[in-house]
Amino acid sequence: MRAHVRADVGGPRTGGRDPRTGGYRRFARTREDAGLREWFAGEAERRGLDLTTDRAGNQWAWWGAPDVRPGLAIGSHLDSVPDGGAFDGPLGVVSAFAALDALRDRRFAPGRPIAVVHFGDEEGARFGVACAGSRIITGALDADRARGLTDADGLSMAEAMVKAGQDPARLGHDEEALRRVATFVELHVEQGRALADLDAPVGVGSAIWPHGRWRFELPGEANHAGTTGLADRHDPMLAFASVVLAARVAALRYDALATCGKVRVEPNGVNAIPSRVTGWLDARGADTDRVRAVVAEFADLVAGHGGVVSEESWTELTTFEPELTGRIATLLGDAPVLGTGAGHDAGVLSAAGVPTAMLFVRNPTGISHSPAEHAERADCRAGVTALAAVVQELAR
Amino acid sequence: MRAHVRADVGGPRTGGRDPRTGGYRRFARTREDAGLREWFAGEAERRGLDLTTDRAGNQWAWWGAPDVRPGLAIGSHLDSVPDGGAFDGPLGVVSAFAALDALRDRRFAPGRPIAVVHFGDEEGARFGVACAGSRIITGALDADRARGLTDADGLSMAEAMVKAGQDPARLGHDEEALRRVATFVELHVEQGRALADLDAPVGVGSAIWPHGRWRFELPGEANHAGTTGLADRHDPMLAFASVVLAARVAALRYDALATCGKVRVEPNGVNAIPSRVTGWLDARGADTDRVRAVVAEFADLVAGHGGVVSEESWTELTTFEPELTGRIATLLGDAPVLGTGAGHDAGVLSAAGVPTAMLFVRNPTGISHSPAEHAERADCRAGVTALAAVVQELAR
Repeated sequence: MRAHVRADVGGPRTGGRDPRTGGYRRFARTREDAGLREWFAGEAERRGLDLTTDRAGNQWAWWGAPDVRPGLAIGSHLDSVPDGGAFDGPLGVVSAFAALDALRDRRFAPGRPIAVVHFGDEEGARFGVACAGSRIITGALDADRARGLTDADGLSMAEAMVKAGQDPARLGHDEEALRRVATFVELHVEQGRALADLDAPVGVGSAIWPHGRWRFELPGEANHAGTTGLADRHDPMLAFASVVLAARVAALRYDALATCGKVRVEPNGVNAIPSRVTGWLDARGADTDRVRAVVAEFADLVAGHGGVVSEESWTELTTFEPELTGRIATLLGDAPVLGTGAGHDAGVLSAAGVPTAMLFVRNPTGISHSPAEHAERADCRAGVTALAAVVQELAR
Repeated sequence: MRAHVRADVGGPRTGGRDPRTGGYRRFARTREDAGLREWFAGEAERRGLDLTTDRAGNQWAWWGAPDVRPGLAIGSHLDSVPDGGAFDGPLGVVSAFAALDALRDRRFAPGRPIAVVHFGDEEGARFGVACAGSRIITGALDADRARGLTDADGLSMAEAMVKAGQDPARLGHDEEALRRVATFVELHVEQGRALADLDAPVGVGSAIWPHGRWRFELPGEANHAGTTGLADRHDPMLAFASVVLAARVAALRYDALATCGKVRVEPNGVNAIPSRVTGWLDARGADTDRVRAVVAEFADLVAGHGGVVSEESWTELTTFEPELTGRIATLLGDAPVLGTGAGHDAGVLSAAGVPTAMLFVRNPTGISHSPAEHAERADCRAGVTALAAVVQELAR
């Protein structure tokens, strides 16, 4: 795993790490993002790979000429949620370089081009839309809508791109970049405990649950906490509290997942009744009906408080190609095959018609999106070995 | 009201105003604070008043020599809550200058010194302790504790003072500044609708309800919103929602006020179960027992969620001197006498033994701590006239 060792300065190991929490804060179109791009370009150059950047800014390091014959892409993302862990995303990119190194060490001669890919803005932590990098190039996220998305400071993606020295006019559906990809395989740390329970270091992904994000705005009337009678108040924090609890009840009722992990209160003063509370709902489930049922019940309650719910993103059930999934599971000695509630760039590419598969590396606690996220070194090595075997099989 | 007219550039009218919301953001030890101090110093100089700054940074503009004979101070604060209104604080300072001008116009010769005072950091919006300026000079807030208070970015008051070119070692109990004050009268916009209901432009304060602020920390376990089963979660947002609703129930039960107007969520990501939620409770009531009952019930619930509650401030019932209050009410033609749930520097000085009174100016809607806070111009003029009459009576 030479790539991992080389990644010490500003790369996947240390870039954007908060020394206080040990968590990572790597958001799209920031200085940290630029550092990770530089690291990726350096890794590509060191291996003599041809670096291209698509219309969303995703980086592709090609071994061979994909314009002649479409190739196999392997990789993942490098960005993080706020205070994210070290493995979610970077493990897939670092393992892809390491798998390439392993194949070259044993003088593997590929029968088709191979790329390591770095997708940008997968977590959507800054602009609110997950998998923005892959969604833009597949056309699932319209370029105008992407440019207009704003961060917590009100800065639009277009403005952030200009500040980062990027050209927002380039953003768009990128058929040329996609045409080069015959197959995509994404390795990712598991985000649950299924592999730990099955005592297996590596698994194969079968499907991504339908999932989405909704923003809800609860209006109130700003007033003084010490002089406004309870009956005279229009306090949106109470409405927020009610709907947060109702979301959990609805998720239990429909056997789905619902989370309110983000809130913004205005003006957020100790002695001020808020004028507005904005919250976000993340909802997922094994099928669309149960997720839609949770969201419908939730939206009714928000409307009852005079609020509105807007859908920020929605992704239908993604089933990876069963033939490809089965072939990989067999190749890996009947590795376990798992569904997941987490969205991935692999899901976006699969929905766009690219034959796609996923490998998962065991997570002993299942903890994810947290500085406590972990994978054992031996399991990471097993992931690289598995990924190299898959590349050898698919790019023979 | 010449002072009001002169206040256009960086002073009480425009300094720290957010053009988006129309609300004010004037926090202690900031650039906006420095601008307001400069405005105050200019108003003092223009009138030939002697400017002194006490050990907390409060500004006193004296007419006459208070070291020979203690005098009458009139004034209020200039800072604001986040997105506060234009009147809360500045009306008292501007009215004090205007009352002084009116008295001089009619060639009033004071029998004792008179000061206009500008108390700093009344709202406590940045460092969490209200009336910090008056509490520090009266010794109600220990200087070491004040220096160690931190803002949302983790900057301590001592560090913020150094950045603002102030000396944190100066902070402390200031008996010399207090010895100069024989009487303090604070004029303030009313923060409820009592005067509107009574059809009176000006009222006299009788008491400040007991009130306090409590911070509550709810621990959780950061995890992925899409892959963590409901039963495996330790989600502190649910605990927050429960205790917010419980605080309202307790306030209703004990006929008190309880507000959760501020919250901080870590990491505050849409698809991340929070690792920690920190909230603030503001509680007040007509007597101490009912406020303590609300807080005790609330703290039990927080403890049940594995959290802790810390008291950030507590102020007992303050009754202004009845003889002084009655004398002023009679002077103003039997003006209404009102209690209030809002804390004021007047309450801190009164608790420290300074004979103190308050005047309230009618607020037609009762809305306060909001850009919609308002007082009619005619009522503001009536406030100046009343304040001038009070000064003439008390400083004869």
